[in-house]
Amino acid sequence: MPAISNEIRNADQDTFLDINIGSLIKNYKKIKNKVSKTCAVAATVKANAYGLGIIPVAKILIANKCKIFFVATLTEGLELRQVNKKITIYVLNGLSVQNINLFYKHNLIPTINNLNQLKKAETSSLDKGKSLKIALHFDTGMSRLGLDKKETQILLRKKESLIKNTEVILVMSHLACADNPKNLKNEKQLNQFKTISRHFPNVKLSLSNSAGILLGKKYHFDLVRPGISLYGGNCTLRKKNIYNHIVSLKVKIIQTRNINKGETIGYGATYKAKRKMLIATIPVGYADGINRLFSNRIDLYFRNQKVKIIGKISMDLITVDLTKFIKSRLTGNDYIELVNLKNNIDYLAKIIKTIPYEILTSLGKRYQRRYIS
Amino acid sequence: MPAISNEIRNADQDTFLDINIGSLIKNYKKIKNKVSKTCAVAATVKANAYGLGIIPVAKILIANKCKIFFVATLTEGLELRQVNKKITIYVLNGLSVQNINLFYKHNLIPTINNLNQLKKAETSSLDKGKSLKIALHFDTGMSRLGLDKKETQILLRKKESLIKNTEVILVMSHLACADNPKNLKNEKQLNQFKTISRHFPNVKLSLSNSAGILLGKKYHFDLVRPGISLYGGNCTLRKKNIYNHIVSLKVKIIQTRNINKGETIGYGATYKAKRKMLIATIPVGYADGINRLFSNRIDLYFRNQKVKIIGKISMDLITVDLTKFIKSRLTGNDYIELVNLKNNIDYLAKIIKTIPYEILTSLGKRYQRRYIS
Repeated sequence: MPAISNEIRNADQDTFLDINIGSLIKNYKKIKNKVSKTCAVAATVKANAYGLGIIPVAKILIANKCKIFFVATLTEGLELRQVNKKITIYVLNGLSVQNINLFYKHNLIPTINNLNQLKKAETSSLDKGKSLKIALHFDTGMSRLGLDKKETQILLRKKESLIKNTEVILVMSHLACADNPKNLKNEKQLNQFKTISRHFPNVKLSLSNSAGILLGKKYHFDLVRPGISLYGGNCTLRKKNIYNHIVSLKVKIIQTRNINKGETIGYGATYKAKRKMLIATIPVGYADGINRLFSNRIDLYFRNQKVKIIGKISMDLITVDLTKFIKSRLTGNDYIELVNLKNNIDYLAKIIKTIPYEILTSLGKRYQRRYIS
Repeated sequence: MPAISNEIRNADQDTFLDINIGSLIKNYKKIKNKVSKTCAVAATVKANAYGLGIIPVAKILIANKCKIFFVATLTEGLELRQVNKKITIYVLNGLSVQNINLFYKHNLIPTINNLNQLKKAETSSLDKGKSLKIALHFDTGMSRLGLDKKETQILLRKKESLIKNTEVILVMSHLACADNPKNLKNEKQLNQFKTISRHFPNVKLSLSNSAGILLGKKYHFDLVRPGISLYGGNCTLRKKNIYNHIVSLKVKIIQTRNINKGETIGYGATYKAKRKMLIATIPVGYADGINRLFSNRIDLYFRNQKVKIIGKISMDLITVDLTKFIKSRLTGNDYIELVNLKNNIDYLAKIIKTIPYEILTSLGKRYQRRYIS
């Protein structure tokens, strides 16, 4: 496939996903202020920086002295490496046989999730005569990635013989219930992690994601790795969100129409006009991550006033009731706001019973993402 | 941003979204057989061919004599134009001021959705001394895009003076309720469309999407424009799907672990093991379009047997119960199927109360899309 030219990228000037650089930086700094000076604040930029654009987001954070990044996949690591040669990049999903050379070549650090992966890293380091840098991930309660209990015991017992050729630069684990400070599992995981970490006196330690950071300094160790807090979503279950909202989504009205009483709107003709109405059509739909479940469930914003979605959200289009503006003049350059400070990602998530993370990662690729100072 | 190299694109060899070329072609031919020989079968490839990849899907269809394509946005039109210089490309979302030159330059046909857009096309054709080819879209009941009633009346009355410089090559409308053959609105829209079309005796006519095609030949006119039927989704409300399923999603197990009775799995520790279990982790999650609502609601497939999702779907990972395979040998090259003939897109859509279209368009960009003969 040919590379996309700027002509193509900028052809449609009608859907804008704006990322507020200042607010992103404020969130990063807020986290810095929560941890001690010796604790590094890394950034989790997996899933295309939660849909906001891994390359620009990383550039902004690098310019603000973030030096360590976490991605999920090797592909993401390679993409991020193109931005900067010096940053430290951890690949959370680990190591597989066929791709170990790419970790060497591009200076990426695999998160070793089991003894089998460790063995591969060891053999390869020996063969190449060059230590692969690795992170060791111990599972303390997620049951997802990381060495399980049995493997942890084996490793701690035979550490000297199992780790000879690789260089362990981080020991980490992941909290399962940090969104709820009252959950006893947090303390349990903390204690398990401490026990393990005593075996690695000279290695940096990391336990906390965004929610873990808010559990207090004893959860911070040498490195925290926030994701959703950087991007302005709430990482707690019941507490107020202390971070700044950073995204807004504005979409141009591409069409308005007057419809008469009795006419219907959209697929299935689910909405029937009870009076004369002014309907505006905007060029986004569920293919852009505006979940169909939002149909008739949220208001959008036009000129700071609430307006209703009318009819079902379709793949590329949404129809909006602008009847209350029927006598005002539309300029041909009018925008509807779908995501803003009121329709923030925490609120939107609640409406369709999900979490703000999924609202962000669903945002499609057709938007023009703008990074605004 | 630098172009993505093949090294990056092929780095992770663990999530495969397979598109069955043979079944796609069969669907296209099945539609061809439903319409008369004089009726063209175009392909709707908007939203990246419903998430399956606009470039490869278009190439396959072109090789099978499809000559006409519909996209939603200008960007999509430009992307598609890179594939082939000769195909006809309609841009459904219409025309705006700033981009009209691109329609000329790349031979794209805007769907004119209101008189204002028509005026722009006319002025521009006059200024350039070159007729812009256009499609005229009349709204007969969707209340979304297309000339509304009043504008339709004006245009039909003043056709000779309003259309002087552009070349109308298609007159179209869109059905709102074609998924339900019993809905009286279908016949109503049909009749309205016929009335309008009499004013354009020498222009090709198009009314039907996938569902319209199944309403019978009187709905076909000169051109049908299927989308979901090509991609194997059901376009009817209650009838059996007559098209072939074309996608499957296979994901490699990147980790297995034994957990003990009482241990919990995933965020929020929502799942507690009642016995010793074997858990597999696969590297996809809601950031890849596997909706969180699927957590605990669908089974996946391993070696043709059903296996359960355990715990909540997370951003990049899903954990699966493989306990019944606890004594069998995993090879290190084992795959879980998320989408297949049993977990087909119609079934998956029902589970989370949406439509198969949204299942497809949600499929993320991290998959390796393979086009398989």
